[in-house]
Amino acid sequence: MLLCDIGNTSFHFYDEENGRDYREPAATFDPAEVTVPVYYINVNAALQPRLDGLENWTDLRTSIAWEDYYATMGIDRVAACEAVEEGVIVDTGSAITVDVVRGGRFEGGFIYPGVSALSETYRRISPRLDSSFNFDMQLDKMPKNTKDAISYGALGLLAREVRTYGLPVYLTGGDALKLMPLFGAPNHEPLLLFSGMKKIIQKAGLC
Amino acid sequence: MLLCDIGNTSFHFYDEENGRDYREPAATFDPAEVTVPVYYINVNAALQPRLDGLENWTDLRTSIAWEDYYATMGIDRVAACEAVEEGVIVDTGSAITVDVVRGGRFEGGFIYPGVSALSETYRRISPRLDSSFNFDMQLDKMPKNTKDAISYGALGLLAREVRTYGLPVYLTGGDALKLMPLFGAPNHEPLLLFSGMKKIIQKAGLC
Repeated sequence: MLLCDIGNTSFHFYDEENGRDYREPAATFDPAEVTVPVYYINVNAALQPRLDGLENWTDLRTSIAWEDYYATMGIDRVAACEAVEEGVIVDTGSAITVDVVRGGRFEGGFIYPGVSALSETYRRISPRLDSSFNFDMQLDKMPKNTKDAISYGALGLLAREVRTYGLPVYLTGGDALKLMPLFGAPNHEPLLLFSGMKKIIQKAGLC
Repeated sequence: MLLCDIGNTSFHFYDEENGRDYREPAATFDPAEVTVPVYYINVNAALQPRLDGLENWTDLRTSIAWEDYYATMGIDRVAACEAVEEGVIVDTGSAITVDVVRGGRFEGGFIYPGVSALSETYRRISPRLDSSFNFDMQLDKMPKNTKDAISYGALGLLAREVRTYGLPVYLTGGDALKLMPLFGAPNHEPLLLFSGMKKIIQKAGLC
């Protein structure tokens, strides 16, 4: 079975037979090149018409129990939630999405700017706030220097918020490794969305 | 006594005799026009050389007990802290600074992006995240719609963080009124920095 998570920058494939994942650039990759059956989720609206014309590409959108989520929720967030029975999922991409699942039920979530967007935001406000982040900051002590004051504002609040849920943390997405130290001992799950996609496929009886 | 808080966009004056405050644009106002004595704080580095040449303008920078703060801390934050004996100060400008004072001592603080910077950040990440903020959001419930998911990420985390300090909240700066509902029943203190400046002047025995 071939799975694909399509975002704004890439097609992220997972080949279940050999457990291998790989990426193709969204801008140049032609999905018609794939001739085997593919199950996919897509948040890239511009690509949807091309995918709709391909018979071997199956959109998982219609197989989701949307009543458990909300209509405009990103399908990548839904897939991540499906993978987890109890926990908080932190998906660190261009935005950081945080979703809470308890007893297999989605309880809600929020959308926070991604690391590079935050960095640009501080730089734009003032050259005096143009600082790299300290990912090893202390979270239990208020900062007393500029670098930590910015790092705590940018990412400390996020880590402290996540901590209040008292749930296991599942960290995924492109900045996961960078953010690891902020979340104590999180589960690093780079393939979390694919595991959610498999559950969606099984629940829907697609294979 | 005339006080002035100089920022990147304006000279903010406070005339103590008649209790009136007013602003002049930083880009066009000539501080040499003022002939009476002025005590000022300034975070606008480009204006400093002109101010240094004016005998009636007294910089409060040298009158601050910097050992109670840290060397690169914005002097506007210091002035706000001097005004408060016990509380958390939320100064909402192009950046939002949050500083904690307990028993008259600065305990630390952090720097968060301002409301308009945050709004631009979400818009830049994706047109799907281009949403106005809901300033009346619920803070005790995880969001289940896009507008609240963005609002909670942008401002809910900030409000929840401030709440954890268990201190009276002093809200000042340009977006204070907009952010009022997020902070329960904060003290709205538009002239907080001037009250801190007066204390600095008194402590230093300047008048």
